[in-house]
Amino acid sequence: MTQHDHLLDAYARLVVKTGLNIQKGQQLLVTAPLDAVPLVRRITEHAYRDGASLVTTIYSDNAATLARFAHAPEEAFDVAPGWLFNGMAEAFKAGAARLAIAGENPSLLAGQDPKKLARANKARSQAYRPALELITGFAINWCVAAAATPAWAKSVFPGVPEAAAMEQLWKAIFACTKADQPDPIAVWEKHNADLHRRTDFLNNRRYRALKYSGPGTDLMLGLADDHFWKGGGGKALNGVFCNANIPTEEVFTAPHKDRVDGTLSSTKPLSYQGSLIDGIRVRFEAGRIVEMTAEKGEEAFRSLIGTDEGAARLGEVALVPHSSPISASGIIFNNTLFDENAASHVAVGQSYTENIRDGSKRSKQELAALGANSSLVHVDWMIGSGKLDVDGILPDGTPEALMRKGEWAI
Amino acid sequence: MTQHDHLLDAYARLVVKTGLNIQKGQQLLVTAPLDAVPLVRRITEHAYRDGASLVTTIYSDNAATLARFAHAPEEAFDVAPGWLFNGMAEAFKAGAARLAIAGENPSLLAGQDPKKLARANKARSQAYRPALELITGFAINWCVAAAATPAWAKSVFPGVPEAAAMEQLWKAIFACTKADQPDPIAVWEKHNADLHRRTDFLNNRRYRALKYSGPGTDLMLGLADDHFWKGGGGKALNGVFCNANIPTEEVFTAPHKDRVDGTLSSTKPLSYQGSLIDGIRVRFEAGRIVEMTAEKGEEAFRSLIGTDEGAARLGEVALVPHSSPISASGIIFNNTLFDENAASHVAVGQSYTENIRDGSKRSKQELAALGANSSLVHVDWMIGSGKLDVDGILPDGTPEALMRKGEWAI
Repeated sequence: MTQHDHLLDAYARLVVKTGLNIQKGQQLLVTAPLDAVPLVRRITEHAYRDGASLVTTIYSDNAATLARFAHAPEEAFDVAPGWLFNGMAEAFKAGAARLAIAGENPSLLAGQDPKKLARANKARSQAYRPALELITGFAINWCVAAAATPAWAKSVFPGVPEAAAMEQLWKAIFACTKADQPDPIAVWEKHNADLHRRTDFLNNRRYRALKYSGPGTDLMLGLADDHFWKGGGGKALNGVFCNANIPTEEVFTAPHKDRVDGTLSSTKPLSYQGSLIDGIRVRFEAGRIVEMTAEKGEEAFRSLIGTDEGAARLGEVALVPHSSPISASGIIFNNTLFDENAASHVAVGQSYTENIRDGSKRSKQELAALGANSSLVHVDWMIGSGKLDVDGILPDGTPEALMRKGEWAI
Repeated sequence: MTQHDHLLDAYARLVVKTGLNIQKGQQLLVTAPLDAVPLVRRITEHAYRDGASLVTTIYSDNAATLARFAHAPEEAFDVAPGWLFNGMAEAFKAGAARLAIAGENPSLLAGQDPKKLARANKARSQAYRPALELITGFAINWCVAAAATPAWAKSVFPGVPEAAAMEQLWKAIFACTKADQPDPIAVWEKHNADLHRRTDFLNNRRYRALKYSGPGTDLMLGLADDHFWKGGGGKALNGVFCNANIPTEEVFTAPHKDRVDGTLSSTKPLSYQGSLIDGIRVRFEAGRIVEMTAEKGEEAFRSLIGTDEGAARLGEVALVPHSSPISASGIIFNNTLFDENAASHVAVGQSYTENIRDGSKRSKQELAALGANSSLVHVDWMIGSGKLDVDGILPDGTPEALMRKGEWAI
């Protein structure tokens, strides 16, 4: 075994045990790009060793996707593999666990006919909904992890030869997921305990707002009434504790859509629908962005926040320490699984129901009355740095230090 | 493009146009081993060029199968991916075409625990039945073709280095499927016309028996009443003409289970459940094998024909010219798709309903009364050679030459 093989195996074991926590007799359904075969084989072996009854992997192939865009007529893009997604939903209902291996080429479909893209995305979203609702509803234990692939590696390390780019990306994945540490599973137990200690602390303090201070940032960000902080692993409705994202560093909750005031500056670039947006500076009044500039991609950002009323308001606020291993890597991954764990961030647009107490039992009207935001979009952008201070504001107005110079103060 | 790439593309085009005859707007569902990715990519492109709306490939991985046998407990083998097979059945019902790429390692599971194998096969057969019935019932256009894979190539050419074995197997596949000819699609049209001319001739003559004469063979083989000859392409219930096997050289029908008398000798070895059987010599009385010897594997053959009452009687008779490209290759493929097209053959065991006129509308009792055979097994073995003569016996007893020295006389 090479050093890479050792690390790949440790990573696979971490995904199966800590990510999925596969149960004896449980089926496992994997989706992965073809380039992830070596990782999927390691994962498959660990799943069987841990008692999985059957592991089924559905591979995707970039070449097949591109052949469709090159040769199929526009009306073909209204068709999606509903039969496969319905089969997946049937598997989840029967208790199968779910693993998604990310690693797609971030710019695979750049330059393709936007009409075909829109029709394909719509058809796929509609056909996938029954399966997706079982995932987002946390019916079964599931996990998203990543595999380095040549196209992704080249996008992260442009100009670097493919083999070296692959090696660097794998090294970054192993570091960010802690798979390169002597006992990754124990490290994740402690990591989860840290995240849960923080979400418990934050949920107990019931801050009414967060105050952000840093270069270009002076913001009072009101939190939704009955907001709920989430982070790290959790128990699915089938009773299995799993970690749905490997890696994860964030704790996150719902802002109040009408109670954000002041200025906020981005600290890392954002890739949105093929456009690079950087140097964002916005001013909020009563929750709404009323002024904005950006050093790059200003039009794209203006278009984003103009999508609908909710797109100019916040739907998520997440705290991530500046020393997070993803941030420490200094790499822009062009992949949300990693990039959203690199820095404290906010998202304009739709908020998560799970970030309101008993959110799934409340009506849309009730959620909106509590301050939850509603929009067709949900786009994260990074505001964290080694110069950011964050205070929690208690109901009586008293500030408490949450982060100092980008690191946890709690 | 290399010469191999040219041939691979011509073969892919043949499979899509002649094998499947994919229709505009039709979905295509492919199953294939991971080693077949280059062929599947060519097929995918041709399918989209011909108007397929969506091509979905489910890849199988030998390593994952072996990991299950190595590590999963015995009770896990009662589990099959019913959710996937149900999805496939849903796709077929909605009109999707079906392509199976064969190329598995023929001895992949040799030496595995027979109990696990039996449970896995049973669970898989039961779960696959709803999808399989749509295939065997010819509800939609479908095709089985093959891809050379390293494990298969090494089993066909033992002792030959892998790259050379792969090259030789691909060369043999291209030759046997006629993909290496200047216009394979036109060649297949003529080939189908030849096969249909022969099945039409044979169906019109309504022979009551075939008489076989050759070294070690002197046999009067009665045909089932209302037997029906089949061969080459046909029209599925969705109205699409397709060629379900690429290659195919045989015309075949149902013997009468009680009207076979005389001696019959095999001409090529037969691999049955891991045992090699060669030099079979049997004597029939009133349809039943009453004496048998074999130079190799006699016990295995005795066990086969002892499975049940129908296993000692014939269920299929097929005529293949000795000059068939598969025979001319001189290769034992260890794969039924090829080997059954290498020589005239018979099968002990179950007969095909399609080989009785209106067979699907008749009861089991009616089929048996016409002479159709019934058994749990259906095993082909080769009896053709360059020294075999076959006569058709008209209802009045007049013989007509059908094959002379292994070649068609009609």
